[in-house]
Amino acid sequence: MLDLRPMMTAAKAASRQAAVLDTAVKNQALLALANAIGARRAELQAANAEDLAAAERAGLPAPLRDRLALTDSVLAAMVDGLRDIAAQPDPVGEIGELRRRPNGLLVGRMRIPLGVVAIIYESRPNVTVDAAALCLKAGNAVVLRGGSEAFHSNQALGRLMGEVLERLGLPPALVTVIPTPDRAVMAELLKLDDLVDLVIPRGGKELIRFVAEHSRIPVIKHFEGVCHTYLDASADPEVAVPVVVNAKAQRPATCNATETLLIHAAAVETCLVPVIQALLAAAVEIRACERTRQALRAHGVTAERIVPAQASDFGCEFLDHILAVKVVDDYAAAVAHIQTYGSSHTEAIVTRDHATAMRFIRDIGSSTVIVNASTRFADGQQLGLGAEIGISTTKLHAFGPMGARELTTQKFVVFGEGQTRT
Amino acid sequence: MLDLRPMMTAAKAASRQAAVLDTAVKNQALLALANAIGARRAELQAANAEDLAAAERAGLPAPLRDRLALTDSVLAAMVDGLRDIAAQPDPVGEIGELRRRPNGLLVGRMRIPLGVVAIIYESRPNVTVDAAALCLKAGNAVVLRGGSEAFHSNQALGRLMGEVLERLGLPPALVTVIPTPDRAVMAELLKLDDLVDLVIPRGGKELIRFVAEHSRIPVIKHFEGVCHTYLDASADPEVAVPVVVNAKAQRPATCNATETLLIHAAAVETCLVPVIQALLAAAVEIRACERTRQALRAHGVTAERIVPAQASDFGCEFLDHILAVKVVDDYAAAVAHIQTYGSSHTEAIVTRDHATAMRFIRDIGSSTVIVNASTRFADGQQLGLGAEIGISTTKLHAFGPMGARELTTQKFVVFGEGQTRT
Repeated sequence: MLDLRPMMTAAKAASRQAAVLDTAVKNQALLALANAIGARRAELQAANAEDLAAAERAGLPAPLRDRLALTDSVLAAMVDGLRDIAAQPDPVGEIGELRRRPNGLLVGRMRIPLGVVAIIYESRPNVTVDAAALCLKAGNAVVLRGGSEAFHSNQALGRLMGEVLERLGLPPALVTVIPTPDRAVMAELLKLDDLVDLVIPRGGKELIRFVAEHSRIPVIKHFEGVCHTYLDASADPEVAVPVVVNAKAQRPATCNATETLLIHAAAVETCLVPVIQALLAAAVEIRACERTRQALRAHGVTAERIVPAQASDFGCEFLDHILAVKVVDDYAAAVAHIQTYGSSHTEAIVTRDHATAMRFIRDIGSSTVIVNASTRFADGQQLGLGAEIGISTTKLHAFGPMGARELTTQKFVVFGEGQTRT
Repeated sequence: MLDLRPMMTAAKAASRQAAVLDTAVKNQALLALANAIGARRAELQAANAEDLAAAERAGLPAPLRDRLALTDSVLAAMVDGLRDIAAQPDPVGEIGELRRRPNGLLVGRMRIPLGVVAIIYESRPNVTVDAAALCLKAGNAVVLRGGSEAFHSNQALGRLMGEVLERLGLPPALVTVIPTPDRAVMAELLKLDDLVDLVIPRGGKELIRFVAEHSRIPVIKHFEGVCHTYLDASADPEVAVPVVVNAKAQRPATCNATETLLIHAAAVETCLVPVIQALLAAAVEIRACERTRQALRAHGVTAERIVPAQASDFGCEFLDHILAVKVVDDYAAAVAHIQTYGSSHTEAIVTRDHATAMRFIRDIGSSTVIVNASTRFADGQQLGLGAEIGISTTKLHAFGPMGARELTTQKFVVFGEGQTRT
């Protein structure tokens, strides 16, 4: 089996160099990568064609093959992403909170890279470049282990990145693409806690469980999104209708799509009918609680796609054009439902009442809490991070969308004039 | 065996209440705890006497028995600590970095508690109160598992804290002292990753290894401190002498005491002799490299306590009146030595050169990097955190001294006016 230790030792050494690279050098490398991807499209697509052919032979379903494809537009998006990341401020070296202590010491916190970051992901080869770019921006070395279906594509992207780094006089070990699809090698990687500082798994639940259970290295998990939108008593139907439809139907397969709609009993009269009609028009199946169905019947709203909710529909991540709908007695019941069934990913409230809005952002412990907008905004790009390496659903180190800054930490810096402790 | 699950379920429920407690209520509880400890000293010391008697019967060495004792001055320090923590700003609820996105969304980050924090520690019973107070301030529920030698003391402190919380109408499950010294229960606790959000082990290497290896819950480790002080070519002897003596000899058994002194070859003439003489006067044994010994001999400095350094002295955490001393050729050799032998805890430079000082704080990746002051300042209280729950030597979540803020995380809060994603 491949011995990872020499590769990870080189990555560790490269991470020391990366930690003190000037911002201009890092940005130059990101722009050079963007140019190389544009210039060497044919070579990348040839490698990708091997993966696509193997996927077809293996009978992979069409949606999975789509995610695998390095089309012109996917490559263009990778190039844009690299340029965006280059244009972002450099998190490394920022010194904040410098304060003078009573004894004259000046104490602050300086942002520094984490070291070596491993990303373990599934089919999409664009993650290879996005993750490498964010890690490089944050002054880390990165180790990439993509899905076996994307093996040839990832190797080609890794080769390209290594060549660009070498041409610029930077250590190619800043970016390591594991050169085998062997699953046993991944298990070995997860044991190297003296060389790798963080593991981020991105993918299905099985992958994340496997990594969490086998890793000696700290793991930041990206679990499911069971997101809720709650229409408060005072919800404005003019806001509720577009926000709910967008949250559910704009891209239902994403983790920040709303899976359950909660409606305050007092908003049933104002909001329920127009919201459900708009959802039906957007081809959404409604799994409705008994009170919802009664209210709809009372207003003459019937449709085949309105079905009774089962207990298992609440807390379910449908990732599809399906929405569970429930009427709640009051604000407290909405919060309690979210605490019981939510996954701490993203929750939204629609309300006109200021006090309720401010209470909601305090009461709800999810990684993104939204007032009067779609849950679909829970995304690094949308929230202003420029890009994201994942969405943490656990609270340690980072919670919610993670950008370059979340791939750094802070140390204390102390400026003295000869002070000693008494 | 004790079933922890019901206790931890209660702690989880209590943590939900703690997360939204008003600052005034938390501070009132901290001050009530301070008063209760003062008022019920006799009861606490009676429980402590049981532990002390058992320790003597078991033949525990005197320094360990000292750490176990709840003397009047230890109790007074606990009371002061509680008042200090009450006086600190509340980290919870702070909203920072509120910025408007191009689409009008106002996006910020709000500081929130972690949930349930478990602290696993060894003999000193004052940790029981310090840790509980910091967790409460940060809006967390806390689970305390102290050493078996301090069992009766910790139970008495836990009872007192529970009674104070109950009297104030707060859930006693905010503070859980595990009611058995059984080690198997600790292993059980470390499996409850659905109920406990973070584990902080404080103590010897064996304890930390045990916790790290058995925990399914994220762990923040507090490993050894192999701290270095480096005298640069331009070091001022008037600064170097007091800083080095303080760093080594003020309290050698602490993790932030300096263990190795590095001296630039060009500083040997200016600094070596006065520094070594002052260290000898402070009863420090000098384990010197060959160049150090030559230079000392050339200046007629000899003493029994100057002995040749062995290879194993570099990177050693003596925790005693012993210092390894090494002459290095230049700044780069000092940095390379620290990178090879340091433990990423705390490093200091003594220099008059501005560029070198600023380079050092960038080049050294340790959790606290100090210019012209003693490494002994690497401590939460000294750096302005008010108190500390430990010193993280790993980079994830927190690096260096951890106060109440490090027991929190940040979520995204988003204020909209009906925005939807396109």
